[in-house]
Amino acid sequence: MTSSAPQPEGARPVPSPRRRPGGRTARIRRQVLDAVLAELGERGYDGLTVDAVAARAGVHRATVYRRWGDVGGLLADVLDAAGDDAWQPPDTGSLESDLAALNREIQDALTAEPPIVAALIAASFRSEQADHAQRRLWEDRYARCEVIVRRAVERAELPPRTDARRLLIAATAPLYHQLVLLRTPPDPDLPGQAARTATLAASAGAFAEPPPSGDT
Amino acid sequence: MTSSAPQPEGARPVPSPRRRPGGRTARIRRQVLDAVLAELGERGYDGLTVDAVAARAGVHRATVYRRWGDVGGLLADVLDAAGDDAWQPPDTGSLESDLAALNREIQDALTAEPPIVAALIAASFRSEQADHAQRRLWEDRYARCEVIVRRAVERAELPPRTDARRLLIAATAPLYHQLVLLRTPPDPDLPGQAARTATLAASAGAFAEPPPSGDT
Repeated sequence: MTSSAPQPEGARPVPSPRRRPGGRTARIRRQVLDAVLAELGERGYDGLTVDAVAARAGVHRATVYRRWGDVGGLLADVLDAAGDDAWQPPDTGSLESDLAALNREIQDALTAEPPIVAALIAASFRSEQADHAQRRLWEDRYARCEVIVRRAVERAELPPRTDARRLLIAATAPLYHQLVLLRTPPDPDLPGQAARTATLAASAGAFAEPPPSGDT
Repeated sequence: MTSSAPQPEGARPVPSPRRRPGGRTARIRRQVLDAVLAELGERGYDGLTVDAVAARAGVHRATVYRRWGDVGGLLADVLDAAGDDAWQPPDTGSLESDLAALNREIQDALTAEPPIVAALIAASFRSEQADHAQRRLWEDRYARCEVIVRRAVERAELPPRTDARRLLIAATAPLYHQLVLLRTPPDPDLPGQAARTATLAASAGAFAEPPPSGDT
């Protein structure tokens, strides 16, 4: 979610953009964005240059400069392309196990080698374009994940007026905090523990929204 | 905590190091580290140079190079100095209100102007020395905050075998995730909501440790 998708997706070949299923433009984009991922994985942000990307992609550097501008533009397009997929959150039959599966995807993505997802997050502290694209991607992933909460409400696991976004943030934040900021080694128990914590809090009403104020 | 202290502290004049209460060396350190904070607040990491810090501090640049080496060394010493204080977590009489007060400190620090704490966290993605120092500071703050959980256990708000660190991470992680990574605008309700979520989860046994395996 939020990340799970950006993450695994970020590490795979970039899918064809939806509106341009084929053609030379789409092919060049795939070559270039795959080259960005490969360069980023090998060298990190500090080693990323438009020239190296163009050379690796086998595309003329003038084409890359014209279409993407600079490294920030390349990173932003990688992130936008990562969101242009059919990713859906896990559907395992219960809130806690959906959240645990989601958290395992996030942990796997944040600890993958080469560390593409971690490098993209780090790049968002450097490039405004990458920052905006990373935020768009997270927003898209969290929005897709809200179905996890809707399904739990339908199963009567949660009260109808549950703030899905706050629940999802609570469930996933410990993964990001530990792996991206505190940089503790991955703990195989963490995805399940964070899922269980959020589920227990949700069952206790932590994310219940107040009734609509216009209610009579 | 984790951050609350790094944060407000990072923005204040650097306290005298404990082992060197006065003297020329301590005075130069204070001047230099205050200059780092001022430069960082005005220009961010990308504008930070040893020469500008030396000029602002009124200290010979050779002294700064010799003692701190480079920008990474300066940032690491700012972070180490921030931890060299008497900060203690809030003590308000209940687990939930202690966590809420702590989260308000974190939110205030992460959204302060100039954005010193945010700049130090961003720098930890750029400089290995700053990264290690930021992690030492967080480790120190989370360790100091464990008293919040001990007091709650003494008040019988929590079971005796509660994993203090996991509880503190769960309580504080949403602040970092929203403000540092997702970069959503500060929400005045967030500190209290995250505190309440962690408290409800804790009361429901989310952070209970298993009994010692050697128990007979």
